[in-house]
Amino acid sequence: MVNAAIVGYGNLGRGVKLALKNGVGIKLTAVFTRRPEQLKKEITEVPVLGTDKFSLPKGLRIDVAILCGGSKEDTPVQGPIFAHKFNTVDSFDTHADIPRYFRQMDSIAKKNGHVSIISAGWDPGIFSLERVLGDAFLPNNKSYTFWGRGVSQGHSDAARRVNGVIDARQYTLPIDNAINKVRSGETPEFSKKEMHKRLVYVVTEEGADRERIRKEIAEMPNYYAEYDTEVVFITKEEMLKSHSALPHGGFVLTSGLTGENTEILEYRCQLQSNPDFTGSVLVACARAAFGLHQSGHKGAFTMLDVPPALFSSRSVDELKSHFM
Amino acid sequence: MVNAAIVGYGNLGRGVKLALKNGVGIKLTAVFTRRPEQLKKEITEVPVLGTDKFSLPKGLRIDVAILCGGSKEDTPVQGPIFAHKFNTVDSFDTHADIPRYFRQMDSIAKKNGHVSIISAGWDPGIFSLERVLGDAFLPNNKSYTFWGRGVSQGHSDAARRVNGVIDARQYTLPIDNAINKVRSGETPEFSKKEMHKRLVYVVTEEGADRERIRKEIAEMPNYYAEYDTEVVFITKEEMLKSHSALPHGGFVLTSGLTGENTEILEYRCQLQSNPDFTGSVLVACARAAFGLHQSGHKGAFTMLDVPPALFSSRSVDELKSHFM
Repeated sequence: MVNAAIVGYGNLGRGVKLALKNGVGIKLTAVFTRRPEQLKKEITEVPVLGTDKFSLPKGLRIDVAILCGGSKEDTPVQGPIFAHKFNTVDSFDTHADIPRYFRQMDSIAKKNGHVSIISAGWDPGIFSLERVLGDAFLPNNKSYTFWGRGVSQGHSDAARRVNGVIDARQYTLPIDNAINKVRSGETPEFSKKEMHKRLVYVVTEEGADRERIRKEIAEMPNYYAEYDTEVVFITKEEMLKSHSALPHGGFVLTSGLTGENTEILEYRCQLQSNPDFTGSVLVACARAAFGLHQSGHKGAFTMLDVPPALFSSRSVDELKSHFM
Repeated sequence: MVNAAIVGYGNLGRGVKLALKNGVGIKLTAVFTRRPEQLKKEITEVPVLGTDKFSLPKGLRIDVAILCGGSKEDTPVQGPIFAHKFNTVDSFDTHADIPRYFRQMDSIAKKNGHVSIISAGWDPGIFSLERVLGDAFLPNNKSYTFWGRGVSQGHSDAARRVNGVIDARQYTLPIDNAINKVRSGETPEFSKKEMHKRLVYVVTEEGADRERIRKEIAEMPNYYAEYDTEVVFITKEEMLKSHSALPHGGFVLTSGLTGENTEILEYRCQLQSNPDFTGSVLVACARAAFGLHQSGHKGAFTMLDVPPALFSSRSVDELKSHFM
């Protein structure tokens, strides 16, 4: 039985808790949070501890700490702290900063005899794996990643910062026509606008200038300016009723040539709950981190470095007999 | 540079040769065949050797032998022989016999200090990997594998054995309606007939009784009786013109619940040339077998046991910077 701790109890932390309940051979033993006193009312079955102090209750065993904070503020701080003490898994997703973060975690984990699986989840994570496999199996390839239909928190937050906006929810939509072109064997160079469009549901203050808001969102650089953006104004009630879920997903397509033949590999995620599925992937990675550690490994790993059977709770015999 | 030998020069051996030409950091150094004298006329760039004798020409280095014979007659014999001498990769695909073959190859490879990756390709192989990943990431799941649209050699051969049939080509077709049901979140129990149908193109002898042939094919147990089978009679010329290619492909779908949310993972292969793509996967596995051996491993592996980054010709830094 793998004993897992959750570090940070937001949407993802809740997703990990749910996944630990469903998980085989792994269970929750502690939750670390910045607000332990508050959370103790909600979570009574395991110790709730502050992220800032590390005197563990006697007899508490933690095999893997699953870091569920944000990649901007939390993980860069908590990753190194927790890797000193435990095996860790995180979903660090600042793509450009992954090599640096890997080196830092690798050095700490090695020094302390732990395993740290970084940047796990579906992207980075499973999608990274599928991009690498597609490229390895089809050397002459062109690869495409499409995201959606799903909620982007970053784009929702950006729209919320516009003056007069009370709430906003942004859906990233992949352009079907582009996906179908790749599926049919074409390998075009797409502009950003040809691959994705953005749909934003917005609740405004009473009497707000909607045309100004629509324009400010659609023309916002980095977030919206390079895409076709549709802004739809709705009521607070409608937002709560129809846009409280956090669906997401996407496609990794690799189109390659073997001689004169076109071979196309496609991976697709269709997620009703992004945080719950990401949590479920992190729990599989916690099992793998424990397995790697048990067999004498130490240092940092990405999902590219983990023998896939280690993600599974099933025995190698069962996998060979029923999954090959 | 990894030096690879091909063992067996049929459709798959040719696919591997093509893939080695496209491969990075790996090259062909020898071909083993049962008919070396004949093949020497076709292949002049590397030594062509008999599969029955093992006196290698001086200076010939073989890092990995890629076994390209059939799973029924060739690989069970050649696997153990070649694993005594070299690292090996094969596409052994008799699913029920994989655990036994694994144990046999594991024992020989370990004794001789080699690495043998068995049962590689797309199914078994990539599809096995996707079945295991889907099951690991979604513990409460139902998994479906669909094959096609593609040519099944076994079913084509079976139809060819019917009296009065000169040539036959069988296409396995997945039933779109079933795939779309799974994609939409349903998790039905399908009968065989509800998942696949069979389409057979047949060339008959002059004056053959086509109704009898149609009936004999459609009612053939194990191969056709459990499916809806369509038999289409064509000319020899039409067969040659339209049905010489060996396309294949398929889908692995895993539909799982995280709490009350449905999460659906889908992997799809769409192959214009089954043997060329399988060859390309075997070459990636040869690279991985060499990498595993270099880092001190020995014994048998499936694609479930190989850290995915080892399939790639790219450096770990490049993978971390550009594929995560």
